[in-house]
Amino acid sequence: MGTAVRNPTEESGETARIEAFSDGVFAIAITLLVLDLKVPRDATGGSHLLRALLAQWPTYLAFLTSFATIGIMWINHHRLFTLIRRSDHTLLLLNSLLLLGVTFVPFPTALVAAYVQRRGDRVAALVYSGTFTVIAVVFNLLWRYACHRHRLLHSRADAAMVRAITRAYAFGPPLYLLSFGLAWVSVPASLATNVALALFFALPNRSR
Amino acid sequence: MGTAVRNPTEESGETARIEAFSDGVFAIAITLLVLDLKVPRDATGGSHLLRALLAQWPTYLAFLTSFATIGIMWINHHRLFTLIRRSDHTLLLLNSLLLLGVTFVPFPTALVAAYVQRRGDRVAALVYSGTFTVIAVVFNLLWRYACHRHRLLHSRADAAMVRAITRAYAFGPPLYLLSFGLAWVSVPASLATNVALALFFALPNRSR
Amino acid sequence: MGTAVRNPTEESGETARIEAFSDGVFAIAITLLVLDLKVPRDATGGSHLLRALLAQWPTYLAFLTSFATIGIMWINHHRLFTLIRRSDHTLLLLNSLLLLGVTFVPFPTALVAAYVQRRGDRVAALVYSGTFTVIAVVFNLLWRYACHRHRLLHSRADAAMVRAITRAYAFGPPLYLLSFGLAWVSVPASLATNVALALFFALPNRSR
Amino acid sequence: MGTAVRNPTEESGETARIEAFSDGVFAIAITLLVLDLKVPRDATGGSHLLRALLAQWPTYLAFLTSFATIGIMWINHHRLFTLIRRSDHTLLLLNSLLLLGVTFVPFPTALVAAYVQRRGDRVAALVYSGTFTVIAVVFNLLWRYACHRHRLLHSRADAAMVRAITRAYAFGPPLYLLSFGLAWVSVPASLATNVALALFFALPNRSR
Repeated sequence: MGTAVRNPTEESGETARIEAFSDGVFAIAITLLVLDLKVPRDATGGSHLLRALLAQWPTYLAFLTSFATIGIMWINHHRLFTLIRRSDHTLLLLNSLLLLGVTFVPFPTALVAAYVQRRGDRVAALVYSGTFTVIAVVFNLLWRYACHRHRLLHSRADAAMVRAITRAYAFGPPLYLLSFGLAWVSVPASLATNVALALFFALPNRSR
Repeated sequence: MGTAVRNPTEESGETARIEAFSDGVFAIAITLLVLDLKVPRDATGGSHLLRALLAQWPTYLAFLTSFATIGIMWINHHRLFTLIRRSDHTLLLLNSLLLLGVTFVPFPTALVAAYVQRRGDRVAALVYSGTFTVIAVVFNLLWRYACHRHRLLHSRADAAMVRAITRAYAFGPPLYLLSFGLAWVSVPASLATNVALALFFALPNRSR
Repeated sequence: MGTAVRNPTEESGETARIEAFSDGVFAIAITLLVLDLKVPRDATGGSHLLRALLAQWPTYLAFLTSFATIGIMWINHHRLFTLIRRSDHTLLLLNSLLLLGVTFVPFPTALVAAYVQRRGDRVAALVYSGTFTVIAVVFNLLWRYACHRHRLLHSRADAAMVRAITRAYAFGPPLYLLSFGLAWVSVPASLATNVALALFFALPNRSR
Repeated sequence: MGTAVRNPTEESGETARIEAFSDGVFAIAITLLVLDLKVPRDATGGSHLLRALLAQWPTYLAFLTSFATIGIMWINHHRLFTLIRRSDHTLLLLNSLLLLGVTFVPFPTALVAAYVQRRGDRVAALVYSGTFTVIAVVFNLLWRYACHRHRLLHSRADAAMVRAITRAYAFGPPLYLLSFGLAWVSVPASLATNVALALFFALPNRSR
């Protein structure tokens, strides 16, 4: 392996490759989540298997929440890159940091699924909300870096839309931090907040 | 992570990214199915290994059925997107719901493979057919949303072909529901129906 | 899920999506092979770990052979699709059958790695060579279907090159069948043939 | 499977497919790293789970180092392919060799994570640094092959930038070889060198 030769700002084709690579990482991370759903072993007997499957409900909930959250992150990521048209080394690094967060998601998901309703659930919930908090912060950093003085934006990017995105993204970190804090008080409340945030961000909002 | 800024209808380039992301998810989900094929442990002795491999036949059948079903879903998905040319938030959500179903398929597949011919097979068959029923319903929702008043279709999309697709897709949910219902009567009949549906949808049909 | 609406011959853009989906499946199948390389457990002590790692040599050989074979298949697949420019339902099915073979490769690879030099190695070698034989046959079917009367080829596809490919591909099935047959006589000879075939096909050959 | 029909130099579209396939492999390899992060089993009790998670720190460090290293390799790979515009059989083989190295990375990563601070750590560190040394060598081979007499480069590729890349890449093999050698003296020093190299290559450098 060599070293990254710096090329201050690269042409629009460059962001196409970043998007393609990121799409790949998002697609794989979202699909790997299913590996956390385990087939109950030796639960023979119809009612036994059904009961064993139902007993795994935290696994399904974690799967759904993480799926929704990664899905929303993908929608956001590719919305941003309809506005971002140039790339530099810092953007590549921030995007890599974001992808690091995305590829990590299956781990806290498995952690929550394994420890919910058992002792240790607080630690699992903290790691889960903490991961999303960090990702939300990196998302803001990436966007603010790209749109600072229109640095890397499409020349025709609408200023009102840029401001609207900046405003909307600012909600992410404090809301996930709230979920992180809630985990100290009530683990179910913290997890429910993550579900609610995924649903909230998934719904279209005319005013945003 | 921030929030999805709504952008009512997006240009044709937008569906290109949806297709690329969806292609990734389909490709990964279809390839992950192989992880359910387990190498028999400690089956030393030639005839023992052969017998151990043959005893796993439900695993291969489930692998083949799921492969065929995801493959057909991919063919259908990309056929639809030769006609769908615009995108909005609802289409993104419906497509995400569809991908949720696709990424989930390896789990019921593993479930059927583990419990066929054992007690619990009815539950496994119900989950398997149920998954495909839900996917078929979402496929119809996505298509009907997109083609309602030609909302998101290519301006040159042929009206006769649009009607033909709508008619053809309408068969999916009742047929998979039939398979779901059959599981209550006979598990083998239900699973055979899924195999037959995969084969049926895979064959070209001149009249459709 | 609906049903595939037939669209006799589709425009060149259609093969672009087939290539993208196939590229995804090839890339995932080739990368999943690494999951068969297991970290030796509890082999503490430097020399112990080294010995445990070296004792796994069949695993590495199987990994390398399968990597090379899938890699060569990818190179061939995308060479074909520089000549194939149109698509129809039969081509989609043949391509799906080919991808089925490709996604299956990690399973016989794990089988050989687990049973080489143990009783049961003959069965493993037969499954391994058998898989590659079937893939070679499907590759020939796909190509011959596409180039029959220039059916789906690029209008400017060079007739001499088309004949050269047809001739070269004809070697695949008998050579892998030879490896399959050899497994009955000598397992090492059969596996060595697979390694040799991967190397042989990987080397450029001016006369082909 | 057939055989690769040689086509001395292929048009620019050819490298697009190589890039797409390579992007897929990089994206999957980088995402599979998360599978090495294991949920601690039966660590019930909040402080127990926390302690069990913290005790896994080598796993996280190996995950981060490998993520950073594969990420930097991807950045480098796609920088090279903004300059490389034609392809031949040798480039395809060198690129396949590079991808072989990339897909292999999760294995030495898991090895280091499992054996750090235990007997056997020296062997693990040697395999880890050795893998990166080989990849660095292949990166240099690929680049030098492509730019020898401007063989496969974009006709407008800037000669000064080509020389700058050649110079910068030359640092890779000796630095990773240094890390390999250090493993004989001190395992922590060798691993720290790998972390430092990942950080060093990730930082933009104006003079390069």
